[in-house]
Amino acid sequence: MEQKHLLFLRNYPKKDIEIILDTAFKFRKVLDRPIKKVPSLQGVTIVNLFFENSTRTRISFELAQKRLSADSVNFSASSSSLKKGESFKDTVQNIMSMKIDAVVMRHPAPGSPKHLTDFTDAVVVNAGDGTHEHPTQAILDMMSLKEKFGYLKGLKIGIVGDILHSRVARSNIYGLTTMGAEVKVCGPPNLIPRNIKELGADITHNIDNLMEWADALNILRIQKERMGLPLIPSAREYRSNFGVTLDRLNQHKKEIVIMHPGPMNRGVEIDSSVAESDQAIILDQVLNGVASRMSILYRLCGGSPNEMEKDDHK
Amino acid sequence: MEQKHLLFLRNYPKKDIEIILDTAFKFRKVLDRPIKKVPSLQGVTIVNLFFENSTRTRISFELAQKRLSADSVNFSASSSSLKKGESFKDTVQNIMSMKIDAVVMRHPAPGSPKHLTDFTDAVVVNAGDGTHEHPTQAILDMMSLKEKFGYLKGLKIGIVGDILHSRVARSNIYGLTTMGAEVKVCGPPNLIPRNIKELGADITHNIDNLMEWADALNILRIQKERMGLPLIPSAREYRSNFGVTLDRLNQHKKEIVIMHPGPMNRGVEIDSSVAESDQAIILDQVLNGVASRMSILYRLCGGSPNEMEKDDHK
Amino acid sequence: MEQKHLLFLRNYPKKDIEIILDTAFKFRKVLDRPIKKVPSLQGVTIVNLFFENSTRTRISFELAQKRLSADSVNFSASSSSLKKGESFKDTVQNIMSMKIDAVVMRHPAPGSPKHLTDFTDAVVVNAGDGTHEHPTQAILDMMSLKEKFGYLKGLKIGIVGDILHSRVARSNIYGLTTMGAEVKVCGPPNLIPRNIKELGADITHNIDNLMEWADALNILRIQKERMGLPLIPSAREYRSNFGVTLDRLNQHKKEIVIMHPGPMNRGVEIDSSVAESDQAIILDQVLNGVASRMSILYRLCGGSPNEMEKDDHK
Repeated sequence: MEQKHLLFLRNYPKKDIEIILDTAFKFRKVLDRPIKKVPSLQGVTIVNLFFENSTRTRISFELAQKRLSADSVNFSASSSSLKKGESFKDTVQNIMSMKIDAVVMRHPAPGSPKHLTDFTDAVVVNAGDGTHEHPTQAILDMMSLKEKFGYLKGLKIGIVGDILHSRVARSNIYGLTTMGAEVKVCGPPNLIPRNIKELGADITHNIDNLMEWADALNILRIQKERMGLPLIPSAREYRSNFGVTLDRLNQHKKEIVIMHPGPMNRGVEIDSSVAESDQAIILDQVLNGVASRMSILYRLCGGSPNEMEKDDHK
Repeated sequence: MEQKHLLFLRNYPKKDIEIILDTAFKFRKVLDRPIKKVPSLQGVTIVNLFFENSTRTRISFELAQKRLSADSVNFSASSSSLKKGESFKDTVQNIMSMKIDAVVMRHPAPGSPKHLTDFTDAVVVNAGDGTHEHPTQAILDMMSLKEKFGYLKGLKIGIVGDILHSRVARSNIYGLTTMGAEVKVCGPPNLIPRNIKELGADITHNIDNLMEWADALNILRIQKERMGLPLIPSAREYRSNFGVTLDRLNQHKKEIVIMHPGPMNRGVEIDSSVAESDQAIILDQVLNGVASRMSILYRLCGGSPNEMEKDDHK
Repeated sequence: MEQKHLLFLRNYPKKDIEIILDTAFKFRKVLDRPIKKVPSLQGVTIVNLFFENSTRTRISFELAQKRLSADSVNFSASSSSLKKGESFKDTVQNIMSMKIDAVVMRHPAPGSPKHLTDFTDAVVVNAGDGTHEHPTQAILDMMSLKEKFGYLKGLKIGIVGDILHSRVARSNIYGLTTMGAEVKVCGPPNLIPRNIKELGADITHNIDNLMEWADALNILRIQKERMGLPLIPSAREYRSNFGVTLDRLNQHKKEIVIMHPGPMNRGVEIDSSVAESDQAIILDQVLNGVASRMSILYRLCGGSPNEMEKDDHK
């Protein structure tokens, strides 16, 4: 691996992404065994530093750590305790002084996982930094696409929703374009970042055009707290303009693969019948999330290809 | 084992209860060793899904899991997050997609653990579903009675308190009658379910008559928040009518065994002197709770009798 | 070890402190290995009973337990649930009935860890009991001093701040004087306990005099919630009278070692430039905290010197 950390996918080396994906597929097989565990990271200490509430991502990382036999410790801070001024630096420096090998960090401030690398020699994995990036989500999305299609190069991926505030969208765009896929985003005009083309993605404001074009759709959760504001007038109007409904899906003869990072607003950005259709790989994404995070932690914490093979043949 | 899950004791096969109890006594011996741990469930992943606050039951299950060498992950949701509509199904489906072998679930809605079996292939253990059932509590109660008396068939068990709202009472009635014990309940008339005889129990409204009859009393916690309402006028009046006091206990020459699922309201449904008397097996219940839950998880997660013996002779 | 528990350092045997410190240095070496883990407490069950919020101390103990291969379970109670009357005794008795080997307890009521020994045969470690004692902090402070100076006997240690309300100060005074060091405290007159000389420490109200005398300073966190009250007029005034500033430090030619138990109020009791100077061993204290707690748990849970050596040579 060229990179020591996984902070963001912007400019992340293609070679490193390939290694992570290859290893993730090996761990995916481990998860089908009766004993879904390998001794790879025994004695390695990982801290989960969550400065933002998260159930799914936290549990996914915790399971990944246990299945690698790592020792992990959880730290959760409410956003209120963040207001204590200098406490971030001191809290983090304190915890990192205890000979931690790796830290998984979620924080509302963009760039904070990178900031953390100034205080510690430990491996840092970004589990979401505000509206900036969510690289492990993009890795698991790419893994799920590769599992479905067999390849990433040349795939046409549509991302639908509030692109402006989405760390999932941003990391997906960087990762997918690095791997040679094409990305087109779709959403209300004021929820598309102005520099979207610089990021590497194309734009459409018409969901039907997007579906005509795409091999797969990644449908983002629309934040209900942003609705009713000028940006998104109402759930009903959003659904009518951008919702992936069964009607819309049925208008296309080809099978568009349906993805969603969860949690879903059923009936708003996605219909229940779409989420539960055979075209949806939403629950595969969840399982691939565990395999991807095992792979990321394993690779960054020094697991070599040979060791992995060794574990694999046990 | 005939049943895949432990959802409720209503109609639960007698043979399965016997297997669980036998294995629980074997694990009880493990808990007396210096190393209170067996490798039986190594590599097995268990999620504790607690949608209701619980300290004692959660810690008991966690200890059972660690002493079986299982990997466990905790999920706690405040009741507020339950109000988000469809989130229950999605939350649960998401977590269960991560190749979970078993889930221990507490939820305020009766039947929710059964509902969960629609979404998952994992083993489901009900750790209390509203006022419906609490089968693992009844298993540990039966184990404690069997430990004390040597048998269950023909035992006369009195259950005292708010039977109507008690999942402990309901599971005890089903389990005990299946095992051939007799059950009589006692409490304020409007806190006895109308269909109590159909459940298999007899009724008395006189605590002294109950004590005259019973070999053992299972004394339920009276919910202070229900007092002062028409149902239970006051703690003092409750104690006077249904409290198991030292005076009452001393009126009987025979030794009535005293049980309580905890937490106790000392001085209301039970006197401190009764709770701490030699007749009380309240703390044995707690320890047997760990052994019972080890047994339940071990049996439902595929541990065979031979493996258990093997562990036993290590 | 003469003592079964670590409840407080008042009258704690010198021999026991020496054993703990010696073993802590051995574990400190373990923490420098790639695999920072020993199998010493495999199968041993430890409960962390925290009746007060704590991040740093809890994580330090959790890491110590995992690196000893112990099984640990966490219990956190908000102060509100303490108001339920008899619940403390019942809660604790309940948990302790589950065959727990050791309990680490933090509680706002002075003496509560000692009180706990009435209910249980388990080893009890005090992780802070109100304003009374915090013995594991004093052990790690002594370890850090011994690491820096090579010895404790004859060392001159200044403790600065709100001595009256500080469990850190109290445990340090007892431990350091037992080990033959001299202690002088310094702070606002009404924040010095009247019986300070009986505890074994000298007093000064002049920070410059203290620095002239001391080999090392242990600078206590000043509670912001106590400022503005008559006791401490303002942060600015406190800094001017008792703050360890870079100016003050530079007035002394000798290198005074700087300690702080954290979390720091930078710019109040300690300047950032002081905290980050080469004289500060604040982050060493944190790492030594893990080693000290490994040592304490290992020794009290029955680890023999030979076993430790065996682990050491693995």
